Amino acid sequence: MISNEVKKQLIEVAGEENYDDSKAGRLVYSYDAAPQFQSMPDAVIAPRDKYEVSRILTICNKHRIPIVPRGSGTNLCGGTCPTEGGLVLLFKHMNRILDIDEENLTITVQPGVITLDMILQAESKQLFYPPDPSSMKISTIGGNINENSGGLRGLKYGVTRDFVMGLEVVLANGDIIRTGGKLAKDVAGYDLTRLFVGSEGTLGIVTEAILKLVPKPETKKTLLALYENIDAAAQTVSAIIAEKLIPATLEFLDQPTLQVIEDYAKIGLPTNAKAVLLIEQDGSYDTVARDMEKIEAICKKGAAVSVQAAQTEEEAFALTEARRSALSALARLKPTTILEDATVPRSEIANMVKAINDIAAKYDLSICTFGHAGDGNLHPTCTTDLRNTDEMERVERAFEEIFEKAIELGGTITGEHGVGVVKAPYLEMKLKKEGISAMKAVKTAFDPHNILNPGKMFASDSRKRVVVER
Amino acid sequence: MISNEVKKQLIEVAGEENYDDSKAGRLVYSYDAAPQFQSMPDAVIAPRDKYEVSRILTICNKHRIPIVPRGSGTNLCGGTCPTEGGLVLLFKHMNRILDIDEENLTITVQPGVITLDMILQAESKQLFYPPDPSSMKISTIGGNINENSGGLRGLKYGVTRDFVMGLEVVLANGDIIRTGGKLAKDVAGYDLTRLFVGSEGTLGIVTEAILKLVPKPETKKTLLALYENIDAAAQTVSAIIAEKLIPATLEFLDQPTLQVIEDYAKIGLPTNAKAVLLIEQDGSYDTVARDMEKIEAICKKGAAVSVQAAQTEEEAFALTEARRSALSALARLKPTTILEDATVPRSEIANMVKAINDIAAKYDLSICTFGHAGDGNLHPTCTTDLRNTDEMERVERAFEEIFEKAIELGGTITGEHGVGVVKAPYLEMKLKKEGISAMKAVKTAFDPHNILNPGKMFASDSRKRVVVER
Repeated sequence: MISNEVKKQLIEVAGEENYDDSKAGRLVYSYDAAPQFQSMPDAVIAPRDKYEVSRILTICNKHRIPIVPRGSGTNLCGGTCPTEGGLVLLFKHMNRILDIDEENLTITVQPGVITLDMILQAESKQLFYPPDPSSMKISTIGGNINENSGGLRGLKYGVTRDFVMGLEVVLANGDIIRTGGKLAKDVAGYDLTRLFVGSEGTLGIVTEAILKLVPKPETKKTLLALYENIDAAAQTVSAIIAEKLIPATLEFLDQPTLQVIEDYAKIGLPTNAKAVLLIEQDGSYDTVARDMEKIEAICKKGAAVSVQAAQTEEEAFALTEARRSALSALARLKPTTILEDATVPRSEIANMVKAINDIAAKYDLSICTFGHAGDGNLHPTCTTDLRNTDEMERVERAFEEIFEKAIELGGTITGEHGVGVVKAPYLEMKLKKEGISAMKAVKTAFDPHNILNPGKMFASDSRKRVVVER
Repeated sequence: MISNEVKKQLIEVAGEENYDDSKAGRLVYSYDAAPQFQSMPDAVIAPRDKYEVSRILTICNKHRIPIVPRGSGTNLCGGTCPTEGGLVLLFKHMNRILDIDEENLTITVQPGVITLDMILQAESKQLFYPPDPSSMKISTIGGNINENSGGLRGLKYGVTRDFVMGLEVVLANGDIIRTGGKLAKDVAGYDLTRLFVGSEGTLGIVTEAILKLVPKPETKKTLLALYENIDAAAQTVSAIIAEKLIPATLEFLDQPTLQVIEDYAKIGLPTNAKAVLLIEQDGSYDTVARDMEKIEAICKKGAAVSVQAAQTEEEAFALTEARRSALSALARLKPTTILEDATVPRSEIANMVKAINDIAAKYDLSICTFGHAGDGNLHPTCTTDLRNTDEMERVERAFEEIFEKAIELGGTITGEHGVGVVKAPYLEMKLKKEGISAMKAVKTAFDPHNILNPGKMFASDSRKRVVVER
């Protein structure tokens, strides 16, 4: 699909050593963390700066070559799978932290910076970048921006979108634009900054970002509350919010998830509990102490069988790390792990968890559920086997019902994983025909030749997860 | 411009009593709070629900009739002036609070709700809606959304955009779409919610909004710090942030503003100070007490001549109310008041204030400056007289230089007032040609016939504030 002439032009831009169309090189970037999708790109390119990105896009736009920007490929929606071939664009040369501005509380980064590296850099200056996707040890900030990543601290602090203040973006036509700035307030024109965040690389290529930092909280405290049934746990979530308490983290794990994590992490989790809440509060010493005292009382009053406060920082860290390892732990069970993120208003969590369990039983599937209870952002996770086509058929029908239920409860098909290829067939459930057509108009406005990550977000046909292309 | 046939259709939709094309009726809506712009609409219409809005838009789209959605018209950018005639659309029948959801911490409102009424309703349930534009006593929430209004509490809490979770919007073609929901996390497709916020009615008509609430802070404290020069005040602002303290409010007033406000409000403001910081912190009792103690110490160390803590809630309220009255107070001085909102990174405030004073002197103008120092959002305000064409010429040149300086310092031409007609000629300073053309593509995607608030945001020619059309 890439002619020799175009290949020559691309190499002229990025350098011989940054263009790879070997079979081995392409294979590495033919899939991402979402199971079931694989497709070979025509080549992989690693530009060294925004001007090279601009020249590459100009060439791709002229020759109608698909271009897929990719960080570490940790997304769970097939968002970086080059389903229509073309170029995979890597940011390995654009991976510097450009500036930490302590006066304006901002950090300016290139897209290839690893999320956790950036978080640690900020923390070394007593500043704090809250969004903490579970993949943060390997994900890049560019990927987080493209997917609008969430994390465990979303309830109190918000998601990636809430921390992006300005972007430099290369458009399909090669134009380089800048949005926002180190500015708490800016209403000069449409909010393109947030439009690009979460647009999955379909509207432009982010080449630089100004992110907001906040003061690092003085301290944090962590506790585990154990329940004999899911309802009691869900009621505690509601009761905490009703008391006007907003913990930094408010995670829910059902028993099967708990068991799997304990088998994996071996830190003495209470695997006999039917449901567990992992609750963390951060802030000033006084506030944390007082909030956690109140939260502990609410948990106890709300029929928690036991409430265990982490005694040391190490113990607290082990608990949250264990929670973050849920996907890895679950992935050990069976060949294929499908981790979803149907999301509902917080008040509907108990109903949603019950519906998930009913649907799993109906289709005879093993679905664990854990997730960000405070956000209503649940991760029903099915451990299965791609090669079992009969079971995969049931998996698809089950998840379709789960998404329908989420929408019925006022929720959405994806809280933080993105649409990509995986959710594209379901997008209309949430947006209706009219919403999809408004979004398609935006896509066409930015990318009339559909070269930017084509095949993502909007379903070209009704292909769902069951169909596997290898 | 509206034929009898079309008028009949519009009356059929909204009812005889909700359609007014009398000269008196049109005159009322021929201008808004931005001086120097007036233009007669062809008629005024007040639909009763979203279906009527949809039918009105369908008619307007077919017959290419401009339509200008309008709340209370308190915007300062001419955003609701019907510069190209057509219909002004009022929300006087769509002004209900539909739901306060204490479990999900949301409030669902129609666009015609008065901002302060909504804030008070939320507070009656111990919840809090932070965005507080100075016009909140009369502004509507629909207007706030269209303009992405800021306010005095932006530093800590953010602006309107940060509190909009979901919208119902009628598009130019009559389609009714819903974005977002009562969802802390939602990445199903592009972030149209934030794209509509601040789009000044040029992309669609907002007919309902789900807004985020937060727990009401337990308490707040207010202090005034007095300075003998502007530099010292600006240094205090930086020092507070550098100490990782984020006050709810951190306002700056120069001496002329102070004098004018005192003449107006008569609450004993220290009019001999060259600059004043008004600082407010809210939160738990412990945190507020500790933060304010630290802030007081920083102010004193930073060469404040005097630091006065408000002794009672009434005194604190009087101080912030006085600050909110700045525009009204300044408006008494001369026939025309031009209040601008050039915004810079917080670290550049001292440089910006100095530049404003130099520019005022250069053009022999009276420009007071006050504003949200913590946000870098300044309000240089010129009191002048529209009929003095020589002076108005200088006013225009001065503001152009002020905007240039703001951009040079990494800032923007408008922090919270919007672009509208007033700032349209300056938009390219901030966005460059490429940025403008990306935004115009978005506009065309949503509104191909340019019926939604035409003439706003994008300058059709180089007409600046000096040219008055009466």
